[in-house]
Amino acid sequence: MSRTALYGGVEAGGTKFVCAVGDTTGHLLETITFSTTSPEETLAQTIDFFRQFPHVQAIGVGSFGPVDLRPGSPTWGFITTTPKPGWQHVDVAGTLGEALGLPVAFDTDVNAAVLGEKRWGAAQDVSDFVYLTIGTGIGGGGMINSALMHGLLHPEMGHLRLPHDWERDPFPGVCPYHGDCLEGMASGPAIVQRWGRPGDELPPEHPAWDLEAQYLALGLVNIILTLSPERIIMGGGVMNQRQLFPKIRAAVQALLAGYVQHPAILDEIERYITPPGLGGRAGVMGALALAMSER
Amino acid sequence: MSRTALYGGVEAGGTKFVCAVGDTTGHLLETITFSTTSPEETLAQTIDFFRQFPHVQAIGVGSFGPVDLRPGSPTWGFITTTPKPGWQHVDVAGTLGEALGLPVAFDTDVNAAVLGEKRWGAAQDVSDFVYLTIGTGIGGGGMINSALMHGLLHPEMGHLRLPHDWERDPFPGVCPYHGDCLEGMASGPAIVQRWGRPGDELPPEHPAWDLEAQYLALGLVNIILTLSPERIIMGGGVMNQRQLFPKIRAAVQALLAGYVQHPAILDEIERYITPPGLGGRAGVMGALALAMSER
Repeated sequence: MSRTALYGGVEAGGTKFVCAVGDTTGHLLETITFSTTSPEETLAQTIDFFRQFPHVQAIGVGSFGPVDLRPGSPTWGFITTTPKPGWQHVDVAGTLGEALGLPVAFDTDVNAAVLGEKRWGAAQDVSDFVYLTIGTGIGGGGMINSALMHGLLHPEMGHLRLPHDWERDPFPGVCPYHGDCLEGMASGPAIVQRWGRPGDELPPEHPAWDLEAQYLALGLVNIILTLSPERIIMGGGVMNQRQLFPKIRAAVQALLAGYVQHPAILDEIERYITPPGLGGRAGVMGALALAMSER
Repeated sequence: MSRTALYGGVEAGGTKFVCAVGDTTGHLLETITFSTTSPEETLAQTIDFFRQFPHVQAIGVGSFGPVDLRPGSPTWGFITTTPKPGWQHVDVAGTLGEALGLPVAFDTDVNAAVLGEKRWGAAQDVSDFVYLTIGTGIGGGGMINSALMHGLLHPEMGHLRLPHDWERDPFPGVCPYHGDCLEGMASGPAIVQRWGRPGDELPPEHPAWDLEAQYLALGLVNIILTLSPERIIMGGGVMNQRQLFPKIRAAVQALLAGYVQHPAILDEIERYITPPGLGGRAGVMGALALAMSER
């Protein structure tokens, strides 16, 4: 039996749940993945998994949203107004905590990934950074002075408003709220609708990727000018198209036009705009880091 | 002679310097204002003023920029590559500290105003907020988790890239780096160039103000989505046009389109987007707060 402290992490996604038990070094003892079905069934599977590990000291949950993170709120730890059927107003943190008799730390999936990248990933050496995920949606979070940003609710960087050159790109965008915001123009579904095929089926030399890089760079420039991060980590399904990274870096430098005079941007941008250190495990390892952060 | 601790504040502007001596309650014993001439003359006037107050314990300087804020840098406390003649690479903090034998806290003018608004102004009850100044330039700073944002250098919120409807507004913008960024479209000089007259000479019902509010609201929306602030304080000469506030608030609500579901934005936006609590004294009182923050 392990003598080191063990923690549990739950990557609570709209499509799948990933649960893991690990220690403070980031070593994972066991992981399990199952589909997100009804809340009753999915949370019961989660509870059954962690009941095998009586030495777990706390659980961290990085959840799809929207979620209630307001300390002291009667619905803290709930998934709230999600469009996902059956999951509206579900008490995720309370259900797990009561069944397992453990403290539960709860945050957005993005904020959990931020914690994971800080602890074991690509942000270990910086105090101010942003993590963006580009996939079905676009989400962003980060740390300032080594603390998570929450504020009023949490950042919603996917919905930044950007210049839209209608002559170059007449596509109106897919965001039901804002049309041509960042998510409306550059998410996975935007690529599918604009080009008639998912990104996976477009070759690396397709013009889709120059346009995609331009929108992502516009978003990054606004984030850089607002937060002054020391690093930007870009993950999610769309960023598996690795040809995007050099295009985005070049576009960010062109758009800033030398205004931010810092070697991180002028000379070392390969390190400044980077894939996640934890790759596809950023979600569940972030949830594990979240569990540890509450102790 | 005062028994309470006294501090010195310097609002180091490109046009004028304002120096003050005050106590921790924000009471100012004396202030002086003089024009910014050569560094030698201006810093000598600053030193002469504070020499009258031997009980001052520390000086805070909120400076025009760009400035070097990197801890440990050999040019920390310098004004660096400013276009202002004679002021390139001037050691402001070191000159004052050596002449007065006092510790000097040094930051941007915007960050100083942020500290002042937190301590005595419109941000006393929040931990995450942004302060924007709209004048000859547009600058922004803020606190996250009650700590100043610095990161790589410092925020440069004036240069956000925004949607530009060229049919409604064919004006190309005045920013020498980016053309139609926020500062390029909405600063005082942009108003002068677009309408042929300074804002002071345009009546409150002039169409200039609807356009101005639209650009400022676009900037605010991007800041809200990136930082999730609990409040936004808007100061500077342009914001003396108080008819802008209701226009900006309405435009922010319209642009967010109900996406950020929080009463601060949906129901209490008068309090959410607000003028500075310290009015025209935000700069020098911020410098005073900066002096106290270092002790």
